[in-house]
Amino acid sequence: MSLVLPAYDDVVRASQTLKGVAHRTPVLVSHTLNERLGAQVFFKCENLQRMGAFKFRGGYNALANLSDAQRQAGVVAFSSGNHAQAVALAAQLLGVSATIVMPADAPRAKKAATLGYGARVVDYDRATQDREEIARGLVDKEGLTLIPPFDHAEVIAGQGTAVKELLEDTGGLDALFVPLGGGGLLSGSLLSAQAISPDCAVYGVEPEAGSDGQQSLRKGSVVRIAQPSSIADGALTQALGNLTFSLIQQHVRDLLTVTDSQLIQAMQFFAERMKIVVEPTGCLGAAAVFNELVPLKGQRVGVVLSGGNVDLAAFGRLLEQGAQT
Amino acid sequence: MSLVLPAYDDVVRASQTLKGVAHRTPVLVSHTLNERLGAQVFFKCENLQRMGAFKFRGGYNALANLSDAQRQAGVVAFSSGNHAQAVALAAQLLGVSATIVMPADAPRAKKAATLGYGARVVDYDRATQDREEIARGLVDKEGLTLIPPFDHAEVIAGQGTAVKELLEDTGGLDALFVPLGGGGLLSGSLLSAQAISPDCAVYGVEPEAGSDGQQSLRKGSVVRIAQPSSIADGALTQALGNLTFSLIQQHVRDLLTVTDSQLIQAMQFFAERMKIVVEPTGCLGAAAVFNELVPLKGQRVGVVLSGGNVDLAAFGRLLEQGAQT
Repeated sequence: MSLVLPAYDDVVRASQTLKGVAHRTPVLVSHTLNERLGAQVFFKCENLQRMGAFKFRGGYNALANLSDAQRQAGVVAFSSGNHAQAVALAAQLLGVSATIVMPADAPRAKKAATLGYGARVVDYDRATQDREEIARGLVDKEGLTLIPPFDHAEVIAGQGTAVKELLEDTGGLDALFVPLGGGGLLSGSLLSAQAISPDCAVYGVEPEAGSDGQQSLRKGSVVRIAQPSSIADGALTQALGNLTFSLIQQHVRDLLTVTDSQLIQAMQFFAERMKIVVEPTGCLGAAAVFNELVPLKGQRVGVVLSGGNVDLAAFGRLLEQGAQT
Repeated sequence: MSLVLPAYDDVVRASQTLKGVAHRTPVLVSHTLNERLGAQVFFKCENLQRMGAFKFRGGYNALANLSDAQRQAGVVAFSSGNHAQAVALAAQLLGVSATIVMPADAPRAKKAATLGYGARVVDYDRATQDREEIARGLVDKEGLTLIPPFDHAEVIAGQGTAVKELLEDTGGLDALFVPLGGGGLLSGSLLSAQAISPDCAVYGVEPEAGSDGQQSLRKGSVVRIAQPSSIADGALTQALGNLTFSLIQQHVRDLLTVTDSQLIQAMQFFAERMKIVVEPTGCLGAAAVFNELVPLKGQRVGVVLSGGNVDLAAFGRLLEQGAQT
């Protein structure tokens, strides 16, 4: 089977689609960090994106590219995280009905936010039911279009607009660090970096406990792992997709891993020194930079902070821990 | 005694001085909030300024305007808060020696940050010593120049650059809400608003427990109050200055007050919905808007978030409280 991979042209089109809809998020710097590393680091703040994560870009771009018939029938997504809210919000803005398949025990706040965007929520039991099966049932029965979280050309193209903006705002970079779950954000970022700053070394960063991407890259084919356990709850995917693996394999410099405690340290740095809330998954790229997993001295370095949707009580506890150490 | 008040020309000059030194901080918006209020609200994020607060603008501008002789002799400031760090950082950048008079029981983190910027810290005992006297002693003995926290033309002009940027980035506004302690930020903001958006109604916002500004405005002369108690630790000044009171009296629409619990709610909103850390004092203007202390429907509204320097453990506890309610 030959894959039709998205290209940078698709990212450019997505960026037109998202104009005036998605925030052009700010790029922040820390002089303290730059002095410590002897490098210039630029943070692309997708935690400050609408609904708190880059996922809005891909979700909106996918929905905006549906046919009229598809829009009228509505869409379905399965997710307990940022993709659910991204599809729900995009659907609301585009006047499309959205159904989100969510575990019955998902955090109440997430369910409330999704309902708040006007979506229908279909509960399932994690222990006994398969969410993909439920979603595909809705596709068959109600004619809904499934919006996958990452392995989808328009989703990837939408996610690529964040790094396009970053590179436009900073000029060329020597290295770029991007959180890696299913690979939608990394794939899109690779398309933009290749086109705008072709010498830039792009790294994907996974939680150590969920290194399926790194294993896949080493092996040369997609490796599926058991459900990993990490505080990076947006990067607990068990396997890359076909599109995302192809793009990553072609263009990435390397895939790196960081530990949960490195993620917590990074969260604390962002709250204390940079005054921003970044969720654990959003810190993956930054943690690789803070711990200098590759040499960075003298370089211009980009980091994508992918999201800021962290439970407030959990965030508070982590900050208190950090303040006491 | 006739006062020589700073004018908008001084703000323009300050903005040249600060170019490439201070961050041009981002302006953020929340669609959720705008829908709730039926208004368009623009947040000028000085919590994302260098050293975490607008104070860097005024401190740097004051030091940059010293004579060569004054620079060689060095500067002194008394503060346990953001002004101390602003003067220390500005002095480091300009190669001037700085002495900060700080209470012996000031938070260790604040002392460490000030020392980290290369300043000399002189401790005093809050119970038995007067910090102004100590600072003036250093002026007499060592020939240092005192950099006051707010009642100083170059400090006011520097602080005014934040709202100059805000109005340049947003276009004219109908209303603007600014935190009020000693009045440096509000005075500078008034100069910029008068010049760029003369119909804009500018409000200063104080903690309810420290309403000396409001009392002064009502009375028509500076009222001094006892040391107030509020979590807005950057707005616990006992009286406005002569320059700041004059400018406020001439140009402000009104002075408003908010409670500590309104400040905590605002902090939680910023962390949860907008993914930014704002210190209690930094939330003063926002709390007035969130609680609609004046009618805002259909208006374009600016809010200055003045700083983000809040103790991490305290911040965590406040977030946890909020999450549990």
